[in-house]
Amino acid sequence: MPPRTIEWTGELDGCAKLIDQTKLPRELTFLEIRTSHEMFEAIRRLSVRGAPAIGIAGAMGAVLAIRDFTGSPDELRSEFKIACDHLVSARPTAVNLAWGLDRMRRVARQASTDIEAIKQALLAEAKAIRDEDEAMCRAIGAHGESLIKDGCGVLTHCNAGSLATARFGTALAPVYVAHNNGRPFRVYADETRPLLQGSRLTAWELGQAGIDVTVLCDNMAASLMKSGRIDIVITGADRIAANGDVANKIGTYGVALWAAAHQIPMYVAAPSSTFDFDLEDGRAIPIEHRSEDEIRRGFGSLTAPADVACYCPAFDVTPAGLIRGFITDRGRIDRPSREKIAALLT
Amino acid sequence: MPPRTIEWTGELDGCAKLIDQTKLPRELTFLEIRTSHEMFEAIRRLSVRGAPAIGIAGAMGAVLAIRDFTGSPDELRSEFKIACDHLVSARPTAVNLAWGLDRMRRVARQASTDIEAIKQALLAEAKAIRDEDEAMCRAIGAHGESLIKDGCGVLTHCNAGSLATARFGTALAPVYVAHNNGRPFRVYADETRPLLQGSRLTAWELGQAGIDVTVLCDNMAASLMKSGRIDIVITGADRIAANGDVANKIGTYGVALWAAAHQIPMYVAAPSSTFDFDLEDGRAIPIEHRSEDEIRRGFGSLTAPADVACYCPAFDVTPAGLIRGFITDRGRIDRPSREKIAALLT
Repeated sequence: MPPRTIEWTGELDGCAKLIDQTKLPRELTFLEIRTSHEMFEAIRRLSVRGAPAIGIAGAMGAVLAIRDFTGSPDELRSEFKIACDHLVSARPTAVNLAWGLDRMRRVARQASTDIEAIKQALLAEAKAIRDEDEAMCRAIGAHGESLIKDGCGVLTHCNAGSLATARFGTALAPVYVAHNNGRPFRVYADETRPLLQGSRLTAWELGQAGIDVTVLCDNMAASLMKSGRIDIVITGADRIAANGDVANKIGTYGVALWAAAHQIPMYVAAPSSTFDFDLEDGRAIPIEHRSEDEIRRGFGSLTAPADVACYCPAFDVTPAGLIRGFITDRGRIDRPSREKIAALLT
Repeated sequence: MPPRTIEWTGELDGCAKLIDQTKLPRELTFLEIRTSHEMFEAIRRLSVRGAPAIGIAGAMGAVLAIRDFTGSPDELRSEFKIACDHLVSARPTAVNLAWGLDRMRRVARQASTDIEAIKQALLAEAKAIRDEDEAMCRAIGAHGESLIKDGCGVLTHCNAGSLATARFGTALAPVYVAHNNGRPFRVYADETRPLLQGSRLTAWELGQAGIDVTVLCDNMAASLMKSGRIDIVITGADRIAANGDVANKIGTYGVALWAAAHQIPMYVAAPSSTFDFDLEDGRAIPIEHRSEDEIRRGFGSLTAPADVACYCPAFDVTPAGLIRGFITDRGRIDRPSREKIAALLT
């Protein structure tokens, strides 16, 4: 297994310990985060990334903000609120960061009038958020591992792996479970331009676990499928509409079209919390566009004319009809429909 | 128009002048090449690239090898043969380099017993190779330009442009002609990993010509097509089989699948010499695999674990059934078949 992405060492006098992902794939370095401000900086500079992992990091950062506090419970709650507001601003569009901090705020409101008890309750909640995420990933792995057959080729896109979660990941959880069960197979990792999460992170964490992994440029997967070396595609998801349309890292839709053209089943692995039943279908999902310099200066050097226009969406939407199945923590949904999704998850 | 990629200035006492493509897109620099050895180095370090442009460069390099020669015609022919053998070794797998030098060798054998006449005949042949290439590109442009409608979006992959030829290019020739005819449209250029010919070269040369160009990562074209902004795809080709199967830069097959899924016509522009009637279909086309470091070390920095395996084919094969038409110097072949191709080109 790859090392734990983020954990809390010890009790209230401990610290958060996380893999510095800005150093990957060159070196494995752990950061020991001892203040809320250090956690803010770690989140902002992407030392920790991936929706679930950021949620955990925010919760632990909130604990760090008040663990040395002395004063009245009301003063603590006031201090805690300021810290949470600050932490959430590190990645304002990261839904899980706000979600994790909301859980922490609820605990702060409900806890007793004893300062120490409040602090202990907050630490327990942060640890619970982390443990629940790991359990969720394990459940996805258990529900998906039988899809990975002896000797098969698995294509994945971006990094929905251990590094994006407490551990195990979502798309990669079935891969880790199948590997632990002794099954031989090979993973192909799209490098995933522009930010190269596939070549930098997915290839690194699978290599750490001793899993056979091969990196390819995003435009090479079609010919790889045609050559017969891919038996299944598994990706993660950022948001899933009620009808099964999936928003995920840019490029996922293209992979799904290629998989369909080669009759290769495409699965999407995600926790049940990723399904948004307020969204009828994928048309309503807003697509964030990112800095054009991610394309123009992708490798630290100028790789395009400095003033050329670039098209740089962060996500795309894959229609439900291209998805053979969902792998969730509550079970699998094969050949998904609005009704099947609602039946399992609502 | 972008500047001429390669030309000969003056007469026998002149020199070859070419754009140093290793400096693009950062700066436009011309190299004045005065010896055969300088041309060998320019070809080897990719200052000039693209099959037709390399063929021209080789022929001009051969002239430079003998223009100051004094001695008998037989001694000149012997010297010339050594120079050609050396030049071809600069890019041993470049078919056009060998082809251009073979034309020069034939002239050297046939020319008169007068040293000066031989030198003049060789210079004339090198200039003819260049001029024929430009005329071929112009013809492709004339046959394809009507496909580019007012306000349309054109997607291209890699660089089959002016920089790869004497001028105008193959895939981009219809684009230049339509632009010169005053038609407004937008080109979308896939960046084309791993070597980024799209973002470095296509975006640069279209920008030089004042053509509206937008760069995107290869994995973004599917969502761009879905958004309705692409009306036509035009790429070049490295080799075309008798049945119309096309070998071209890796990623072309994937683009063709996406175009088919969105009912967008896909055209391949190439000179008639690119059709290989000895090849029944695309299955027999050998696919070169390139250094894994092109993926692992994108432009000098480590973008994947240093020892990870990579899949790095240089080309893929697009089945004829995915191609709406060929644009050649002899005319267009819409909805191509083995019979239609043979009828126009043999």
